[in-house]
Amino acid sequence: MLQKFKEHININFPFLKDKKLLIAISGGVDSVVLTHLFSELNFDISLAHCNFQLREKESDLDEEFVKLLSQKSSNQIFTIKFDTEKFASKNKFSTQIAARELRYNWFQAIIKKHGFDYVLTAHHADDNLETFLINLTRGSGLDGFTGIPKINGNIIRPLLAFSREEILAYAKINTINWREDASNATTKYIRNKIRHTVLPLLKEINPNLLETFAKTIENLQESKQIIEDRIADISAEVINSKNDILKINIEKINQLSNPKAYLYQLLKNYTFTEWNDVYNLLSAQSGKQIFSKTHRLLKDRAFLLLSEHAIPNENEKFLITENQTEITHPIHLNFEVVQQKSIENKQIIYVDKNLLKYPLIVRKRQNGDYLYPLGMQGKKKLSKYFKDEKLSLFEKENTWLLCNNENEIIWVLNHRQDRRFVNDNNLKISLKPT
Amino acid sequence: MLQKFKEHININFPFLKDKKLLIAISGGVDSVVLTHLFSELNFDISLAHCNFQLREKESDLDEEFVKLLSQKSSNQIFTIKFDTEKFASKNKFSTQIAARELRYNWFQAIIKKHGFDYVLTAHHADDNLETFLINLTRGSGLDGFTGIPKINGNIIRPLLAFSREEILAYAKINTINWREDASNATTKYIRNKIRHTVLPLLKEINPNLLETFAKTIENLQESKQIIEDRIADISAEVINSKNDILKINIEKINQLSNPKAYLYQLLKNYTFTEWNDVYNLLSAQSGKQIFSKTHRLLKDRAFLLLSEHAIPNENEKFLITENQTEITHPIHLNFEVVQQKSIENKQIIYVDKNLLKYPLIVRKRQNGDYLYPLGMQGKKKLSKYFKDEKLSLFEKENTWLLCNNENEIIWVLNHRQDRRFVNDNNLKISLKPT
Repeated sequence: MLQKFKEHININFPFLKDKKLLIAISGGVDSVVLTHLFSELNFDISLAHCNFQLREKESDLDEEFVKLLSQKSSNQIFTIKFDTEKFASKNKFSTQIAARELRYNWFQAIIKKHGFDYVLTAHHADDNLETFLINLTRGSGLDGFTGIPKINGNIIRPLLAFSREEILAYAKINTINWREDASNATTKYIRNKIRHTVLPLLKEINPNLLETFAKTIENLQESKQIIEDRIADISAEVINSKNDILKINIEKINQLSNPKAYLYQLLKNYTFTEWNDVYNLLSAQSGKQIFSKTHRLLKDRAFLLLSEHAIPNENEKFLITENQTEITHPIHLNFEVVQQKSIENKQIIYVDKNLLKYPLIVRKRQNGDYLYPLGMQGKKKLSKYFKDEKLSLFEKENTWLLCNNENEIIWVLNHRQDRRFVNDNNLKISLKPT
Repeated sequence: MLQKFKEHININFPFLKDKKLLIAISGGVDSVVLTHLFSELNFDISLAHCNFQLREKESDLDEEFVKLLSQKSSNQIFTIKFDTEKFASKNKFSTQIAARELRYNWFQAIIKKHGFDYVLTAHHADDNLETFLINLTRGSGLDGFTGIPKINGNIIRPLLAFSREEILAYAKINTINWREDASNATTKYIRNKIRHTVLPLLKEINPNLLETFAKTIENLQESKQIIEDRIADISAEVINSKNDILKINIEKINQLSNPKAYLYQLLKNYTFTEWNDVYNLLSAQSGKQIFSKTHRLLKDRAFLLLSEHAIPNENEKFLITENQTEITHPIHLNFEVVQQKSIENKQIIYVDKNLLKYPLIVRKRQNGDYLYPLGMQGKKKLSKYFKDEKLSLFEKENTWLLCNNENEIIWVLNHRQDRRFVNDNNLKISLKPT
């Protein structure tokens, strides 16, 4: 296999030559063989091992094993211990996802700090086929059937073209030792079941299954590429991006051959899971919104607005006492007693300090808010005022209000002053742009 | 199941109501149950049974069985016997493809002749999943993973949402008899292996596998839809169609993100199988060509030309004796002795009959052909003449030549006359457009 591997590297990964490589090593046969192969070929390698502390003593024994291995082969080794369960529960990740996050983030950190060029992982052809079948049993879409990429940024998977059988045979011939993974996590259970019962049957039907499958994966990756091209085209047509908010034109989406399919593709990277809710937004009332782990999608008249997730805490209030001349959070305001009005613009108002009841309050809109807009007659509901000014829902939510201690609006920041607090204009209030 | 089926029909196939339906019935449990269900719901059904004569006596017993069934239920039945093997070998189809061709063509013929609205087939959810796995073992692309469509023109598959288990249970409860398919064809062998060994394992992993899979299929169909949209876009950009020849702009193909992937999509319906050869044409020398069962793809300078398959027989010659006044094959020519030239155009030439050596020959170009083009000086190789006239390779191949019995060119039809045979213009030769 060494010769075949050498040729494979030369043809598929010629750029690895003379580079500083970091091999992700668990202690299992795949990563130990990968390390052995790169050693034999005299590449400049170091090792990186994550102890996820998921299997108690076994995890520590794995760590000891790879440390010993690195000593014997005089390769530099990096190790780290993770409290994976804690990280998972804190972030509401599955253990598997948590481990992946921790592992790849750590690799990238080492790469950056120590000047490595690439991380190598030991995924092989059977892994790809097993993942395909796992995703089939779970339900999936094209993305679940296109396999692990052999090159993904600085992550390289040189064994993807090799079978578990070849790797095991190589380990045997070279009397390589490794650690068996004794894990019994659910995904491991399913993977083992597929590995030991389903795959052998499929390989009976087609003894060249792995090669056939490699071609299948390639075909599906090509399909994915075409979809990505199409989605890039469509994005340019239906999406406007402004201030980190993506504005999706609903009418244009509805004109496409399959609006749901397109909406899925446009939004699939924003951690939504309840796709029917997403689709239903297309025809929902304005103001309806749904949240993913990281994002929020809001129906706003003819658009869907996508933004990073930050549920505004509508109850949060920031107080300003009578003698305060400045606040810096959540917005930056200056208070200055003056003789008379001078500069005037949207960021500056003048009020009569004697009419204010302290402490003042900075807050977001609430139900029942109203104001007496300066320069207009009568009283107006804040909601009506916003509507007349054609503010989007996002703008409404992001607009701060300066109120007195009876919750009466003094200033709709960046928009309009209330005329009740205007008389002797001896207090200048200025908003500093953030 | 009857109630569930009724609701399923009302929701998914409301248009079947009061229509004339033709049920494709093999005699197996699926099609017999389908027939039973539609009878129970009082639809207007007739039956159609194909005897493919692939299993000798068994095939005839199947036919008898469904005939008897139709008598009992007083449904009209159409039956036909096919010599499937002969049809397959004649058309170089696999037995399976041959049977499918024969079956669906016959259904369409009955539909047309007898005024049916739809054909119903009994494919069910397990069929879809089995086909998915068969295609996985064989190697496939997205098209092999999107399942059988539940509605495809006038072909309807009302049982696709139901499992084999449900169908068998319905047959049992209603004491329905059916014929077991004793076939041992290879595809049957693989299908049975998957049905009886692989699927049960996957269903252990996920007891709701069929439902999950239905969603997966839907996702993949959506991906396929997006690809089709993209390919429609791209076709409009890179393909010109003229005289049944598709002209594919190579430069534009090469500008796409993945030229091979696009070329596959553009050409996938033209029965090519050697895809590497197809891809290599992109960079091949002009003149290189490859053939599929039905089509031919020719590299012609900056283009790939796709046309229906008709390999020209370059050696074929058609003789014209001295007294003949007309030939009609391979082209239509008239010979008329006249006093003088009158009408002139590209379809008519005048020659000196005394200079012709009979029999004349109609043929395609050969190596070494040359002519003395009328209206030009000197002698010219035919290949050079074609090149100067900027004929495409297709045009070159499709141009007929009229020669004398020494193979000297008298007329490049539709193009130019040779000046050696011009003197006393007493023979008018006219080409009738085909």
